[in-house]
Amino acid sequence: MAKDKNAPKPKAQTPKGFRDYFGTEVTERAEMLAQIAGVYHRYGFDALESSAVETVEALGKFLPDVDRPNEGVFAWQEDEDGDKGDWLALRYDLTAPLARVYAQHRNDLPLPYRRFAMGPVWRNEKPGPGRYRQFYQCDADTVGSASVAADAEICAMLADCLEQVGIPRGDYIIRVNNRKVLNGVLETMGLQDDDQRAAVLRTIDKFDKVGEAGVRELLGQGRLDASGAYIDGVGLSEAQMQPVLAFINYFAAVQDKLALEASRAIEEGDKERGSKLDKARYSVSFEFKDTPEISGDVESLKIWNSRVLDHLQSIIGNSEIGFQGVEELREISSLLISLGYGPDRIRIDPSVVRGLGYYTGPVFEAELTFEILDEKGRKRQFGSVAGGGRYDDLVKRFIGQPVPATGVSIGVDRLLAALREKGRIGSQSVGPVVVTVMDRDRMGDYQAMVAELRSAGIRAEVYLGNPKNFGNQLKYADKRNSPVAVIEGGDEKANGVVQIKDLILGAKIAESASLEEWQDRPNQFEVPRDQLVSKVREILESYS
Amino acid sequence: MAKDKNAPKPKAQTPKGFRDYFGTEVTERAEMLAQIAGVYHRYGFDALESSAVETVEALGKFLPDVDRPNEGVFAWQEDEDGDKGDWLALRYDLTAPLARVYAQHRNDLPLPYRRFAMGPVWRNEKPGPGRYRQFYQCDADTVGSASVAADAEICAMLADCLEQVGIPRGDYIIRVNNRKVLNGVLETMGLQDDDQRAAVLRTIDKFDKVGEAGVRELLGQGRLDASGAYIDGVGLSEAQMQPVLAFINYFAAVQDKLALEASRAIEEGDKERGSKLDKARYSVSFEFKDTPEISGDVESLKIWNSRVLDHLQSIIGNSEIGFQGVEELREISSLLISLGYGPDRIRIDPSVVRGLGYYTGPVFEAELTFEILDEKGRKRQFGSVAGGGRYDDLVKRFIGQPVPATGVSIGVDRLLAALREKGRIGSQSVGPVVVTVMDRDRMGDYQAMVAELRSAGIRAEVYLGNPKNFGNQLKYADKRNSPVAVIEGGDEKANGVVQIKDLILGAKIAESASLEEWQDRPNQFEVPRDQLVSKVREILESYS
Repeated sequence: MAKDKNAPKPKAQTPKGFRDYFGTEVTERAEMLAQIAGVYHRYGFDALESSAVETVEALGKFLPDVDRPNEGVFAWQEDEDGDKGDWLALRYDLTAPLARVYAQHRNDLPLPYRRFAMGPVWRNEKPGPGRYRQFYQCDADTVGSASVAADAEICAMLADCLEQVGIPRGDYIIRVNNRKVLNGVLETMGLQDDDQRAAVLRTIDKFDKVGEAGVRELLGQGRLDASGAYIDGVGLSEAQMQPVLAFINYFAAVQDKLALEASRAIEEGDKERGSKLDKARYSVSFEFKDTPEISGDVESLKIWNSRVLDHLQSIIGNSEIGFQGVEELREISSLLISLGYGPDRIRIDPSVVRGLGYYTGPVFEAELTFEILDEKGRKRQFGSVAGGGRYDDLVKRFIGQPVPATGVSIGVDRLLAALREKGRIGSQSVGPVVVTVMDRDRMGDYQAMVAELRSAGIRAEVYLGNPKNFGNQLKYADKRNSPVAVIEGGDEKANGVVQIKDLILGAKIAESASLEEWQDRPNQFEVPRDQLVSKVREILESYS
Repeated sequence: MAKDKNAPKPKAQTPKGFRDYFGTEVTERAEMLAQIAGVYHRYGFDALESSAVETVEALGKFLPDVDRPNEGVFAWQEDEDGDKGDWLALRYDLTAPLARVYAQHRNDLPLPYRRFAMGPVWRNEKPGPGRYRQFYQCDADTVGSASVAADAEICAMLADCLEQVGIPRGDYIIRVNNRKVLNGVLETMGLQDDDQRAAVLRTIDKFDKVGEAGVRELLGQGRLDASGAYIDGVGLSEAQMQPVLAFINYFAAVQDKLALEASRAIEEGDKERGSKLDKARYSVSFEFKDTPEISGDVESLKIWNSRVLDHLQSIIGNSEIGFQGVEELREISSLLISLGYGPDRIRIDPSVVRGLGYYTGPVFEAELTFEILDEKGRKRQFGSVAGGGRYDDLVKRFIGQPVPATGVSIGVDRLLAALREKGRIGSQSVGPVVVTVMDRDRMGDYQAMVAELRSAGIRAEVYLGNPKNFGNQLKYADKRNSPVAVIEGGDEKANGVVQIKDLILGAKIAESASLEEWQDRPNQFEVPRDQLVSKVREILESYS
């Protein structure tokens, strides 16, 4: 260290795409994780924490949303006494580690194994605004159950989680689809090649971003994306891509119609109808003119679901897998009715695809339907905060035999951002009581005061900076958002008293035009030393 | 994926030195972290969470306990569009990131900045039994205060944390020393070279492991360690190493004497005295015959501290830095008296060194003093669970000017292990109520039952495995440690009732030799369907 004195100074900088979280950013997330864990636990799930580091071999190449699937992770090779060892990597989600854990410990685990996990995951991707390379996930999965009751339950649990953390009913919608239905559509197109099918699914999922023309290019020969990179197409002929385009255009036309109706209603001054129609645009994709009112009653759910399911039946034609998919959705729909979850919370919606290649059955996605302003000040729906589905093949990689599994992942950071947008969390936290230092030789006296306050459960600290400038001590208390400062100079000490400064009241007086309304309550007063704790508590309680 | 069908199966294995944590292992740690966070918060510290990944440049070469300081981390080089970018690494502690955070954000942070942080850290070291390459730390630090009041307060807070998580007074001791005193000793030896001084400190710290002969070799030419590796020595002459050996032998002789007295007392049947003496061995290092009784009263603290400090004064001779160190310890000692912490909790002890090169002033260490059995069944003291100290140069690396700082790090995993050893945590958690599936076509009915139970705040789930074999369902409930199973077959459904099976009572009856004591309380009974929730609650409450 000493010899580095003349070395260039290191940059004090987080690596690109990483950030620091301060104070309430940390505690509000911890609180949200605890609330979600509470719901997961009540549903019978047990906690699991695997390490952040896995072998690349165990993680596999299931990384979502990446065109080159062996990239996108932070990986390095072990050095074993000079020899090259295993490749290790930071986990990119909590599902791949679960598959490894289940395969490794399956003889000791109950069957089915229901676990929840929460913690950071890492993606080695280009960072963007609000897009970080470390973020939190909070997952629950049921491994070893083939029953769609497991899927239905996870959708219900997801709704409970969202409401538990403060998203009221009506501000979110959970949409459920089934990969088997999509596969049925692909089957009617005559696509057998797995890679091609996966590519078509990814393309359907991109419709929101690239529009119809983009989808047409991506299904055909390829297209230049916004960054100038050329994305290879799926290579379908015009004839082959027709069913997909028909499928997509159908939804697009309905959505356009709803958007038009919504803006008309708003122009006509009927904001309520406009907002309802706009919400419907996101959650209702079929034949708008017959859409039942958005409500939670069981009858409208039955009508809605049976209409959607009959429609799907007609799309998938004679596909066996497609038929299975529709039947599973029918069962999920009926279980949700038993559990008491109406279409105001969870509904069948065939436009849900979900990016991950590994889903094999039901897929679901939770969207927040309220509007926020984007970075350019335009209104937009907040969008997806959670998703999941059934992935029957993930454990099979390890043990050779299929193990049915289904689960959900909640994007905790996005959910926190949504609650902050709505002003439901994020108020500044109250700082500690600050005991100021008037006489640095009497630090023991001041420490005794904070010890008393803390013993009474009151957050408190002695000012530990240089006490010379008393103004700096009050500035510090201000920066900490302290409610109270305590002052004991030589005179106070001699008289057995302390000064108590009510900083919240002080701030109010400073803001207020007239002092009169505060005149009966001084913002600084003297109390006997032995009443310190009770007086401070009195002030704190008056603001709580 | 499909094309990998014939590829060899990946190994389902955590990387070497990593492990998985299940159920209560996870929730008990979360609970402990929350309790410690509560104490830190009450002392006025604010939460901070930095990312797991830092640039190697920012982390620096402060890794503790590693002979080659640029190793010991998990690191990799960024790939920036094909070019080699920054070297990144997983943090190896929470202090190095704090120094980076403070340097980066100092204009926005209060001064002093008091923060706490908790989370995993990673060490790229050879794993051993109970020694993992990922483990939790839980730190609190005050940056920007030169006052030893900050150090004293952190020692007091550490004591509060230990008691908060369930280590009773008397089962731990916090020992405080000052690097400046040790530097004073080194100065009297005539050592000026920083590396040599650091090497001597590391050697003193190894005394517990290698004994006097080992220390002599390490101070001289070097020694073969247990693994057969040759460790270079400091290169001191016999004359130079005499003060250190005298220093060490002094403590060693006192400790031997105490150990002897302790075993004699136990032989004589005076267990209480034996245990007291044995405890003293760990916390008392001076002139046993005059050691005051171990107690918490202020008078004995004053006597104890002044005796130790006078002794230190005589060791450091005319060293200016040594004198400063003794004066700081005197001040800390007097502040601890003001805060009300006696020598049963915190005491001055010059045998504390602490491994890290970066400490510049007071250092402290918390040890648990109760005995546990080691892997070979031998009794030993549990040892260190937390430590810290003042490190005034860590932020200076970034900004060129010194920033005084002090802090503590609690080894949460070791603390949990200690509480488990003592049986204070680790009881098996109660599982969910399991609603069994008698008729798989009526899954909706069973889901409705768990929905009702959950709404009443009762942890519950439907059995989601294959319901064909009813015995497997009860085995599952047993494996989950379920308190209650609910059964509704066709007859029950027709009669509007459900069967409730009290599994805790069932287990008790199975264990008990005589059934008589349970005969007035059946372990399975029938209740009307609409009394399901209230009856289940009744059973759960009877066991809580």
